[in-house]
Amino acid sequence: MEKLLDGIEEILLMGPGPSCVHDKVYEALGRKSLGHLDPYFIRIMDAIKADLRTLLDTTNTLTIPISGTGSSGMEACFVNLIEKDDPVLILINGVFGMRMQDVAQRLGAHVENLEFEWGTPVVVDPVKKKIAEKHYKIVAVVHAETSTGVKNPVAEIGDLLDGSDTIYLVDAVTSLGGMPIAMDAWGIDALYSGTQKCLSCPPGLAPLSFSDKAVAALEARKTKVPNWYLDLTMIMKYWKGATRAYHHTAPINMHYGLYQALQLILEEGLDNVYRRHRHYHDELVAGLEGLGLSMLVAPGSRLPMLNSVNVPEGVDEAAVRSTLLREYKIEIGAGLGPLAGKIWRVGLMGHTARQENVDRLLEALKTILA
Amino acid sequence: MEKLLDGIEEILLMGPGPSCVHDKVYEALGRKSLGHLDPYFIRIMDAIKADLRTLLDTTNTLTIPISGTGSSGMEACFVNLIEKDDPVLILINGVFGMRMQDVAQRLGAHVENLEFEWGTPVVVDPVKKKIAEKHYKIVAVVHAETSTGVKNPVAEIGDLLDGSDTIYLVDAVTSLGGMPIAMDAWGIDALYSGTQKCLSCPPGLAPLSFSDKAVAALEARKTKVPNWYLDLTMIMKYWKGATRAYHHTAPINMHYGLYQALQLILEEGLDNVYRRHRHYHDELVAGLEGLGLSMLVAPGSRLPMLNSVNVPEGVDEAAVRSTLLREYKIEIGAGLGPLAGKIWRVGLMGHTARQENVDRLLEALKTILA
Repeated sequence: MEKLLDGIEEILLMGPGPSCVHDKVYEALGRKSLGHLDPYFIRIMDAIKADLRTLLDTTNTLTIPISGTGSSGMEACFVNLIEKDDPVLILINGVFGMRMQDVAQRLGAHVENLEFEWGTPVVVDPVKKKIAEKHYKIVAVVHAETSTGVKNPVAEIGDLLDGSDTIYLVDAVTSLGGMPIAMDAWGIDALYSGTQKCLSCPPGLAPLSFSDKAVAALEARKTKVPNWYLDLTMIMKYWKGATRAYHHTAPINMHYGLYQALQLILEEGLDNVYRRHRHYHDELVAGLEGLGLSMLVAPGSRLPMLNSVNVPEGVDEAAVRSTLLREYKIEIGAGLGPLAGKIWRVGLMGHTARQENVDRLLEALKTILA
Repeated sequence: MEKLLDGIEEILLMGPGPSCVHDKVYEALGRKSLGHLDPYFIRIMDAIKADLRTLLDTTNTLTIPISGTGSSGMEACFVNLIEKDDPVLILINGVFGMRMQDVAQRLGAHVENLEFEWGTPVVVDPVKKKIAEKHYKIVAVVHAETSTGVKNPVAEIGDLLDGSDTIYLVDAVTSLGGMPIAMDAWGIDALYSGTQKCLSCPPGLAPLSFSDKAVAALEARKTKVPNWYLDLTMIMKYWKGATRAYHHTAPINMHYGLYQALQLILEEGLDNVYRRHRHYHDELVAGLEGLGLSMLVAPGSRLPMLNSVNVPEGVDEAAVRSTLLREYKIEIGAGLGPLAGKIWRVGLMGHTARQENVDRLLEALKTILA
């Protein structure tokens, strides 16, 4: 029988996620499984909740990982908050805003969009105008648009919604653990993320947080959540209280990995982690520009952890990625949608954001593009 | 900072899942992450598909793990096959049949049930009568009812549906890898399972298989699948073909674990694995009866991997479980629903089904119940 696992080579993961994983997180994944109702496992669950609150700068009780990858977090936020014909406004400037629209429409929401050019951020003024004209149950935006490398003005949009009963829903898949998030101060009511970006844990869980306002909206539903697996009214009974009620069997070992990944971030210190992301982003951009390459996104809107690089005229972008992977053992990402073939996406997420990784990629690109 | 992972003790997992995990599977979980579109990872995906087909005895192309725990497999089967008001018949004799009903109702199906006493199997004759009276789009049943320890007559119900266009949907969460399943021969069209039972891999993935008939029903939908995350029309483009389309980031390291768990089963040989489950089930039952305990389920309907033991009069069942866990480092399960407080559930799933584990539990129970 072929032993494929023995043939796995270590790849430097500099794409849009998954990112490089610390050895301590790999070790954590292989710790002995406990039962999902074992009191010791519940202690680990409680520690994960507390650490996620710290990263999100929130006091939200309902702050837990969902048992699926980042996109299951998106699904969970929308399916718990939407009832048929609810008016939802989605701010779109990339693939993940488009995905939000698709998710919300499938759930029967009345979805409206405001669209902005891919590679540029959401602009606050048209949003202000739109929400002044009509009341939406939910306004949703992506914090760090992984498809373009653009940072959206999440705090400023939150200010617009201050005092309203609209639920403010934010995708923090790529931002969490790599740049500051202040869920409470920014007025975010529902937020989801993923483990395989700046948390530097393999994919498999989706951190999620609901404010009291979002929980109240959930509890005021007239209909059952049309998704048993992601129904937070049941899932929260497993995640809080003295007696835990079985809902589904939690992915035990993935939780060990997430716990360890959060510990590493908190040991380094959030400010240090954010500074490191920013620093190696600057190093990378300077190096790329030194090679004659240019960035898709204007400086003020760039994400530190996801760098979109314009593919130079006449270069076969797929061949470059393939050579990087095969010969240099470095993975970078392709463009998606209208940016397919036009950009490379270089991730500096979590544990990947290190000097040696920036250097290794720049050296390789220098040789390949020469 | 507290280091909770260092405090994890090895527990003998003899509950209703998760089950004991082989060291090779723990090692697999900690292998270096690859990108979800890395050609080498795609080879691992293809091997998983092939191995799952062998375990299920099917040629179904659409045989893949869903990125969530077993219950996400249930959700995926129903949400991909149900459209509003579709008539669905669910055969219920335990918690997981009830869960099917809840899942299907939330999706807008017109659900009818046939209920059977918990602890006894589904009876074929009333099913025959019911499906003669009315046409159902889906008939669903649980193969191994984990809440009671009962085996349902899945092959016989499949015979009733032979030649009809009704989709036959089976929960194989607890049966897969512990007792024979012949998906094609039994006429099963849609099946889901979980990794944390007889596959002896930690929870986090849900093997799923659709027959061509089920795929045709999916493709004939008039409406989009109302769940983006679990939409198989998109997910299958990631799992087959020469060019793989990104849908969501697969839980890479969980797939390593599943791959290794499947390898271990195939190396031992399916017949040997099933014989081992049956053999240690017999040993366990004999030992329990030797202690004066009795089984909930009649001999002909007992599952080998999930043994429901009647709690003797006057015994505090929760105290016994707690002592087993704290003092003997053995986990067994409690009863659910109407069986709460009345039974213990002893798992002999996958790697747990070994002589030394049976002996250790029997010794402990002998002392505790003395």
